[in-house]
Amino acid sequence: MYLHPLSGLTLATALGLAQLPALAAPVQIKAPAELPARATIADAVKASKPSDWRPLDPDNTLYLEIPAGRVVLELAPDFAPKHVANIKALVAEQYYDGLAITRAQDNWVVQWGDPDEKNPKPIQHAQRTLPGEFTVPLTGIKNFTRLPDGDGYAPQVGHSNGFPSARDPKSGTAWLTHCYATLGVGRDNASDSGGGTELYVVIGQSPRHLDRDITVVGRVVAGMPLLSTLPRGTAPMGFYDSPDKNVPIKAIRLAASVPLAQRANLEVMRTDSAAYQAVLEAQRHRGGPWSKVTAGHIDVCNAPIPVREVGSK
Amino acid sequence: MYLHPLSGLTLATALGLAQLPALAAPVQIKAPAELPARATIADAVKASKPSDWRPLDPDNTLYLEIPAGRVVLELAPDFAPKHVANIKALVAEQYYDGLAITRAQDNWVVQWGDPDEKNPKPIQHAQRTLPGEFTVPLTGIKNFTRLPDGDGYAPQVGHSNGFPSARDPKSGTAWLTHCYATLGVGRDNASDSGGGTELYVVIGQSPRHLDRDITVVGRVVAGMPLLSTLPRGTAPMGFYDSPDKNVPIKAIRLAASVPLAQRANLEVMRTDSAAYQAVLEAQRHRGGPWSKVTAGHIDVCNAPIPVREVGSK
Repeated sequence: MYLHPLSGLTLATALGLAQLPALAAPVQIKAPAELPARATIADAVKASKPSDWRPLDPDNTLYLEIPAGRVVLELAPDFAPKHVANIKALVAEQYYDGLAITRAQDNWVVQWGDPDEKNPKPIQHAQRTLPGEFTVPLTGIKNFTRLPDGDGYAPQVGHSNGFPSARDPKSGTAWLTHCYATLGVGRDNASDSGGGTELYVVIGQSPRHLDRDITVVGRVVAGMPLLSTLPRGTAPMGFYDSPDKNVPIKAIRLAASVPLAQRANLEVMRTDSAAYQAVLEAQRHRGGPWSKVTAGHIDVCNAPIPVREVGSK
Repeated sequence: MYLHPLSGLTLATALGLAQLPALAAPVQIKAPAELPARATIADAVKASKPSDWRPLDPDNTLYLEIPAGRVVLELAPDFAPKHVANIKALVAEQYYDGLAITRAQDNWVVQWGDPDEKNPKPIQHAQRTLPGEFTVPLTGIKNFTRLPDGDGYAPQVGHSNGFPSARDPKSGTAWLTHCYATLGVGRDNASDSGGGTELYVVIGQSPRHLDRDITVVGRVVAGMPLLSTLPRGTAPMGFYDSPDKNVPIKAIRLAASVPLAQRANLEVMRTDSAAYQAVLEAQRHRGGPWSKVTAGHIDVCNAPIPVREVGSK
């Protein structure tokens, strides 16, 4: 079993030997020293208490049902109140049902919406477009837990109620960061041209250069592989080149409107908990026996947020 | 066409309106101002000269042939001379042919090797294991073009001969960074337990915490979707849970050993060229009409390295 992402706790005894450089060079590379054992992410999860977890709020959880199965999306009303309300209104009138995933661009996004641009599906009660909510006043965001680690894209990064996020005290703004699994609102050139009829999910390297430039409304908490393994589109920007390649959306439902027995029974580790600090520390400073070097740093988009069945260990 | 990653040059005329916060808050969020038009990555590629590109070196290019097609890998001998030589020796004796991709872990790696742990395929001339080449003396690395942008994981980051890389002048070391499409050498706990019989490719967010902890030997330059869309394994660590789910490797070949007509005819933008600086600047400071905010920063793993058919525009 090679390339363990999460090391165990057994102390390694064998010492690694220095690799003498093959190129003639004046510098000697030091042998990677063995690291002491440290708690892993799995250990941090195991040591957590029930109070370190929160169930998904059924009023802010969506189920995206596609032929391959269910993708569970958590909405972040604090960061995009009008868009979240509008997306819930679109869900309530079953706007998305029968639409399709029309785009899958490698190392970028999967996107869905109305594949019929000529005869767009009518909207009953929701809005088609809204002014962008690219940032919100940071005073409205509670439970921000700041990472001490630096970030190149924002003055401060951390987590707010389970979402990777950033803030700029100078401008008084906060926003959700674009990470793997981030859920955002597609728009055209005008900042008020999106509203939730087109949604995308990040399936690659965090495109942080989109931060503050588009409305982010949440993240995928379960089912990412159903999106990340979709065939990539071959038309420009990863759009599918013919309608028969589109992936149909059977339905998008608010969890609260789904019978209890059919809901995903998931809980998410609270990002303002001590348990989550232990998760971050395990990633930031990995120990032996697999790891020989500790990174000493964590990127906000490399901070895993544990999700599990309610009450599982 | 929503969510343009590469904006065009047309000046937008409509001004975006401020989104007044829905939450009662003392802070007014400023309207996203329209940005002036700027050269895009596509513009930078279009403006490049033939001398800004280099063809792939057939002596350091591998073709991974799987049922879905060909993945083109570029090796980085400067950063892992012994491993690259050993992998080429394994290729020469057709060691990989008939082995399989046995692991696909979402937002992590795809990995291949010998699926038969009990009766491992014999090796004729190459080595099964080597001491790790986690870092090399930075004096041996030519053409390092440093990014002025900061990085949380390394004192210096940039590109060396087309590869995202980092250096630490204090320890006199350099290494390849783990980004999307990075090719690395699986190992067990001991730092000298890898040698190239198990290889992995990153298919998600850059796992930079693996830097300096494992031997990196190159990157995928074409064919990533063939790996990134593979079904994810459901056994621990993303291994496939039964042999019939493994993805067979038809062959791995050195480009130089393949008849000219069957080679991929690709060229890569030189990362020490002025054209590449223009690419980075286009990503770092995106302009209108789509973008309303410029990031002002680029992450070494978010710096696209253009690849194209030789001589195409």
